[in-house]
Amino acid sequence: MFKIVEWKKNTVVMIDQRILPAKEVYLVLKDYKAVAKAIKEMVVRGAPAIGVSAAMGFALGALKVKTKEKKVLKRELKKITRVLAATRPTAVNLFWALERMNGVVESNADLTVEELKKRLVDEANTIHDEDIEINRAIGRNGAKLLKKNSTVLTHCNAGALATAGYGTALGVIRGAIEAGKNVKVFADETRPFMQGTRLTAWELKKDNIDVTLITDNMAGHMMSKGLIDAVVVGADRIASNGDVANKIGTYMVAVLAKEHKIPFYVAAPLSTIDMKIKDGTGIPIEERDTKEVTHWNGKRVAPAGINVLNPAFDVTPGRLVAGIVTEKGVATRPYRTAIKRLFSK
Amino acid sequence: MFKIVEWKKNTVVMIDQRILPAKEVYLVLKDYKAVAKAIKEMVVRGAPAIGVSAAMGFALGALKVKTKEKKVLKRELKKITRVLAATRPTAVNLFWALERMNGVVESNADLTVEELKKRLVDEANTIHDEDIEINRAIGRNGAKLLKKNSTVLTHCNAGALATAGYGTALGVIRGAIEAGKNVKVFADETRPFMQGTRLTAWELKKDNIDVTLITDNMAGHMMSKGLIDAVVVGADRIASNGDVANKIGTYMVAVLAKEHKIPFYVAAPLSTIDMKIKDGTGIPIEERDTKEVTHWNGKRVAPAGINVLNPAFDVTPGRLVAGIVTEKGVATRPYRTAIKRLFSK
Repeated sequence: MFKIVEWKKNTVVMIDQRILPAKEVYLVLKDYKAVAKAIKEMVVRGAPAIGVSAAMGFALGALKVKTKEKKVLKRELKKITRVLAATRPTAVNLFWALERMNGVVESNADLTVEELKKRLVDEANTIHDEDIEINRAIGRNGAKLLKKNSTVLTHCNAGALATAGYGTALGVIRGAIEAGKNVKVFADETRPFMQGTRLTAWELKKDNIDVTLITDNMAGHMMSKGLIDAVVVGADRIASNGDVANKIGTYMVAVLAKEHKIPFYVAAPLSTIDMKIKDGTGIPIEERDTKEVTHWNGKRVAPAGINVLNPAFDVTPGRLVAGIVTEKGVATRPYRTAIKRLFSK
Repeated sequence: MFKIVEWKKNTVVMIDQRILPAKEVYLVLKDYKAVAKAIKEMVVRGAPAIGVSAAMGFALGALKVKTKEKKVLKRELKKITRVLAATRPTAVNLFWALERMNGVVESNADLTVEELKKRLVDEANTIHDEDIEINRAIGRNGAKLLKKNSTVLTHCNAGALATAGYGTALGVIRGAIEAGKNVKVFADETRPFMQGTRLTAWELKKDNIDVTLITDNMAGHMMSKGLIDAVVVGADRIASNGDVANKIGTYMVAVLAKEHKIPFYVAAPLSTIDMKIKDGTGIPIEERDTKEVTHWNGKRVAPAGINVLNPAFDVTPGRLVAGIVTEKGVATRPYRTAIKRLFSK
């Protein structure tokens, strides 16, 4: 089985998701700046995987600071935090992971520099391993929502490749299959980065899960033909009222699901829920290079001199979400209270 | 200005829409089989342009039959009709044009073979010229529906390139601008064939009309941001009850427009309305080669061994359509009576 992001002999090893499925290439990253670049350029993507990568980048950065003085290490770690935090704005797991790593620094004032470095490497690996366990719990909780024979539409990739392994939305599908259900998947290709075509189709095929690829604009047609029983997607940030920021096009799928009375579920760990944010309007939406839309493999497809927009995410209001599947259970409307309840479990 | 399809010295000349906007190449087609191939392979596309091309293909086929006997010519024209009719199933203008050309054969029993051939060439050119006039009338009728300052979302290309010239949906936009309105356009890229990116953006840019390119899955986000005032699309076939078959993804846009209370208009000539069909379920939907989805420029993007679907069209129910803009006026709900009224004008 492929690995998404791994700590290996004081380096961070990542599968290069930009060139999947054509080639399965692993990049060996030797300093935190390389990790930051990898997050920014989407070598690794998906909110939980970004969180794990940021934690490992932080540990790697700590490891490479040549000092015996705690003060110097802490000063450098502030810079490292800044650089890693500046990579991508929407996925809150990035900030969550950096906060957790900085928390380890703060709460271990008694450790020597070398001891603290080791402790940070351990914490990054713990975040990695916990993420897989969390995904398996999401899978078990979400499995119950799917009927014995179900075709599930998913958008983007919230699979093993978006996490440390197993996946959130695809974790629900894997969980249902492990529970003996017959689940087939429709995957939106997910323009412009083609996570559906390149990543979701690839990892489901590897697991021998029945997957049908469609372009994003076919989702409504397939629903109107009665081919879709449920929608399950991941999330990059969930506001405390249940509004969900996820890959651009998710909102479109949610509106289509409402029109066809198909349940629309979001699967995400609690670390994706941002309790500091009141509603979706507070979630920063990343605008990426318009070349992702106008070019293909470096070659221009669109005419020059036109306007182009490339928001990487959109916000689906909680009213369109039938349930948020987390490791602590499934939250349903009204989300403000249901989410609070999950955190107190 | 570019020409879409033109009769020139006993050949049919077409701009190759497959390679726009990279290159502006004109193909010179010397027999009806080449015209059929061009329609099938989408050198030319768009319901009205397919109709004009089929008429010219028919005339070209007639011209090349070496006989003085009417019986032989008529037998060959049956074969030519069959070949041209088998190219693409959804756009009804194809069948409408072939019926009109065959009608000329039937109603001119007194003409010699040579006279009839000349008459058929004239008829094809008349269909071409009429199409431009019809589009200008659609433009004038539709212009009234747009506010003085409007941003219009369109899907696929229902522009000059989809017709003999001027366009249907883009004809409405051109008409509104000619009427002094300030109209900007958002163009869905329109996967998998990218008519929005390659054709709509290109021809609007040529006309200095403000155009913003987005991927199909951004349409909902743009509407939720209040950036879209109206939707105008074309049609490949309209049933007698107002159900509209148009490029895949049109239905998705219509559902999104309903959710955001944005008027959704269809612009098409009467020749796109198929009075023989009761509702959208009767419209045949073309399934195209799945390579259009899995490959890019001949290179595989998706993993091998997965399922792929590629319906080229979908059906938008009349209940989602705020108005059907034709050369005879704008039909509104209930469509069955409104459409009948247009035909009797």
